[in-house]
Amino acid sequence: MASFVESFWGERNNGFDVLYHNMKHGHLSTKDLADFIRERAAIEEAYSRSMTKLAKSASNYTQLGTFAPVWDVFKISTEKVASCHLELVRKLQELIKEVQKYGDEQIKAHKKTKEEVSGTLEAVQNIQSIIQALQKSKENYNTKCVEQERLKKEGATQREIDKASIKSKKATDTYKLYVEKYAAAKSDFEKKMTETAQKFQDIEEMHLLHMKEIVESLSNTVKEIHLQIGQVHEEFINNMANTTAESLIQKFAESKGTGKERPGLIEFEECNTASAVEGNVQMQIQLTFLTLMTKGTVLNQKQARISFFLLQKYW
Amino acid sequence: MASFVESFWGERNNGFDVLYHNMKHGHLSTKDLADFIRERAAIEEAYSRSMTKLAKSASNYTQLGTFAPVWDVFKISTEKVASCHLELVRKLQELIKEVQKYGDEQIKAHKKTKEEVSGTLEAVQNIQSIIQALQKSKENYNTKCVEQERLKKEGATQREIDKASIKSKKATDTYKLYVEKYAAAKSDFEKKMTETAQKFQDIEEMHLLHMKEIVESLSNTVKEIHLQIGQVHEEFINNMANTTAESLIQKFAESKGTGKERPGLIEFEECNTASAVEGNVQMQIQLTFLTLMTKGTVLNQKQARISFFLLQKYW
Repeated sequence: MASFVESFWGERNNGFDVLYHNMKHGHLSTKDLADFIRERAAIEEAYSRSMTKLAKSASNYTQLGTFAPVWDVFKISTEKVASCHLELVRKLQELIKEVQKYGDEQIKAHKKTKEEVSGTLEAVQNIQSIIQALQKSKENYNTKCVEQERLKKEGATQREIDKASIKSKKATDTYKLYVEKYAAAKSDFEKKMTETAQKFQDIEEMHLLHMKEIVESLSNTVKEIHLQIGQVHEEFINNMANTTAESLIQKFAESKGTGKERPGLIEFEECNTASAVEGNVQMQIQLTFLTLMTKGTVLNQKQARISFFLLQKYW
Repeated sequence: MASFVESFWGERNNGFDVLYHNMKHGHLSTKDLADFIRERAAIEEAYSRSMTKLAKSASNYTQLGTFAPVWDVFKISTEKVASCHLELVRKLQELIKEVQKYGDEQIKAHKKTKEEVSGTLEAVQNIQSIIQALQKSKENYNTKCVEQERLKKEGATQREIDKASIKSKKATDTYKLYVEKYAAAKSDFEKKMTETAQKFQDIEEMHLLHMKEIVESLSNTVKEIHLQIGQVHEEFINNMANTTAESLIQKFAESKGTGKERPGLIEFEECNTASAVEGNVQMQIQLTFLTLMTKGTVLNQKQARISFFLLQKYW
């Protein structure tokens, strides 16, 4: 398996830079994840609001006719779906808080790590500058050698050759010094970079495990609400199965029925003149009392006197 | 069980009116159902669009760092959820067409029914008007009786009494006529109303069964898409389980690794002046050729001549 300790060396020795920035990008991915969940929560909230509106539409549909009670089934189910999605919003918002908390911890941890790996950064800069200096000193050494040789071949004066020899000697010393310095820098760099690459890999592993935990939490929440919504659907299907055409017809007949009595027989009624006259008045008295009683009216003196007179005369 | 045939009689005989309007309300409920599905489809479409946007957000998040490949998992899953909801929209739109078709058929069927039950409407109007006339004729008969009796008691002239008697006789005949008419109207009304109430109940049963079929179609569609979305969630969970921290670290090490070679040993290299001079020129020739070859350049006459000269001199 390719690991950080193995894969971030190379000619230019800038594996450290790549790994350090990768750690910093870990914080960006945390912010991205929070943004993703936030956008999802906003979508769910909008959906929930629309569903609540749809439930209201259902209750505004015609309350006339046999189908009317079905709108209640729709209304209840749609409200439940809306509230499932709102529950999802609430859980996502909690999750966002967790992600943000983790992001804050990350910033602190990265700051601490930056300090801890500062020695490695120095080792990197050191080996990089020594390699440059070594290269330069080697070139200088070669130039000086060739110059000395050329003077000898072209038969220059001894003075000129001696001067070139001193320069060549000095270039040789510098070159040798950088060869030694490089050996020390290489050893220091290898040791520190090995440690730091492992540290960056550990940090990355922890980060990824944490991110995966958050994603798991997200998918568990989504799954849980999905199951709840499934139950609402099942409930709706059951409620609709129980809402039979027969029961709707029965309900309508019971609530809007105009009466069970068919038109009665009507026969010719012989006129009883005595009872007709008296009957009419009696009827009128009874109606008056009934009206007054249902209205809860207390009779005034005059009404009471008239009532008494009528009762005496016709009862 | 309360049925239409039993429940729409009653004193005022306006059960027919209630049942006729109930049939008409059946068409309103069809339109309401189409509206409900249309609103739901619009909600699902908006949700799908938002999810597509969210999938785009996921692919726009940082492509740096070890977490980057996870955004592809999010993107694919979110796109799939979006397309499930779009599939729901498509199916709901098909269903709306069916509902509209049914609504159109309903209008035609109601028109036909209106004609078929016109006889019953006449029977209703007939019995209602006869009841009124009967009531009136009875009152008139009673009034005339009382009048005749009063004249007798008060000792009116024979002429006056005879006149009143003729009137009373006429009122009696009218009253009797209406009692007969009522008996015929009642029989006709009962027969027709029984048939029509059954017809309205049958229409209603057919309507409710049809509506329930549409609702079933709706809930099956919603359930089917719900299952598909559940599968997308499962897939996401599996994909995330396969995206281990180790695999992400490995992927990053492989794609962004700076090299597996640790800094090499560098030793002091003695200057060989002869080879240094020649070597330098040879190196230059080789580099020139290499550059020209990699660029695919064809040498011009002058370049070729120089190259030939250099090769002769130093190879």
